[in-house]
Amino acid sequence: MPQGQPTVVPDDGLTTRQRRNRPLVFVHTGTGKGKSTAAFGLALRAWNQGWPIGVFQFVKSAKWRVGEERALRVLGDSGEGGTVAWHKMGEGWSWVQRDLASSEEAAREGWEQVKRDLAAETYKLYVLDEFAYPMHWGWIDTDEVISVLRDRPGTQHVVVTGRNAPEKLVEFADLVTDMSKIKHPMDAGQKGQRGIEW
Amino acid sequence: MPQGQPTVVPDDGLTTRQRRNRPLVFVHTGTGKGKSTAAFGLALRAWNQGWPIGVFQFVKSAKWRVGEERALRVLGDSGEGGTVAWHKMGEGWSWVQRDLASSEEAAREGWEQVKRDLAAETYKLYVLDEFAYPMHWGWIDTDEVISVLRDRPGTQHVVVTGRNAPEKLVEFADLVTDMSKIKHPMDAGQKGQRGIEW
Repeated sequence: MPQGQPTVVPDDGLTTRQRRNRPLVFVHTGTGKGKSTAAFGLALRAWNQGWPIGVFQFVKSAKWRVGEERALRVLGDSGEGGTVAWHKMGEGWSWVQRDLASSEEAAREGWEQVKRDLAAETYKLYVLDEFAYPMHWGWIDTDEVISVLRDRPGTQHVVVTGRNAPEKLVEFADLVTDMSKIKHPMDAGQKGQRGIEW
Repeated sequence: MPQGQPTVVPDDGLTTRQRRNRPLVFVHTGTGKGKSTAAFGLALRAWNQGWPIGVFQFVKSAKWRVGEERALRVLGDSGEGGTVAWHKMGEGWSWVQRDLASSEEAAREGWEQVKRDLAAETYKLYVLDEFAYPMHWGWIDTDEVISVLRDRPGTQHVVVTGRNAPEKLVEFADLVTDMSKIKHPMDAGQKGQRGIEW
């Protein structure tokens, strides 16, 4: 709620304005739906502000996010808001010219590019979709991720989605939402459907 | 996950295909962020399928959802996916020609239009943003909402967002996600910021 009044005024030496524009790290985790969809919803706001957006999709699937991807590409190309760069691990990252031996190697190559883009301040919003998994699986070092995010220059917001977000990352992040499943049609024997699941 | 296998095969007399295309009611509730942003993320998928989308914004605020609204309007006007009709209570519903005495009356007028559109099968996805509140406050009868949703014709998906979704609605809905706040920058004294909160 933009109108919300903070309950605590922090003793961090920042003005309200500086604090207001502080770059944020978001984590969307939990077993329910909505972790990635909320991240892409956030991207709509960033687009509206004219921010360059970088999406890094750390999942291997042709079907996932096709709707979000097409919508964000159309928005990015509309010339009315920010730009959108969409990077997909499933088809091989565009900057990697050789075959990657494993998902682990692919995830690491993705993270290397995120680091380069953060250093270069390429985007103003990073959607690191399903990035919690390679950290959870130990493919990417959570301490390194936290260190890189802590030291990132400028005003770059970062959203990390995925189940099992490492506790250390949750502690470090500015905003964490746990999406809990209360009920899902698959529990009642329904398969995913077009327009709803992808 | 579209690839997911249901754990139970229901004894409902429907084929897998019928079940797969069953119209769904979603509820996004809880105290955390992401309830509405996930609903608008879902709208991106619906747009990609070419579905007509109706958004009914049951909140009174000029600032809220400006990014989502502009993005969905650009998408709806792009001619590349579905259409988008965006209805805002804050500015008065477009179909109401007289002044509405109260938020309660305005909420009721919104629901009357949703009923008319459901009966006419105007949209294929309805985003009833913050619609949990008027039910929670007793302005709109939850039993009536459930009855109307249960009897709606055709294949019309409905998403209801907002805190304190009535328990009866949660029981009725097909898919319910509870967004729990683990951490929010306002707890640390930060006010909402442009591009993030709106």
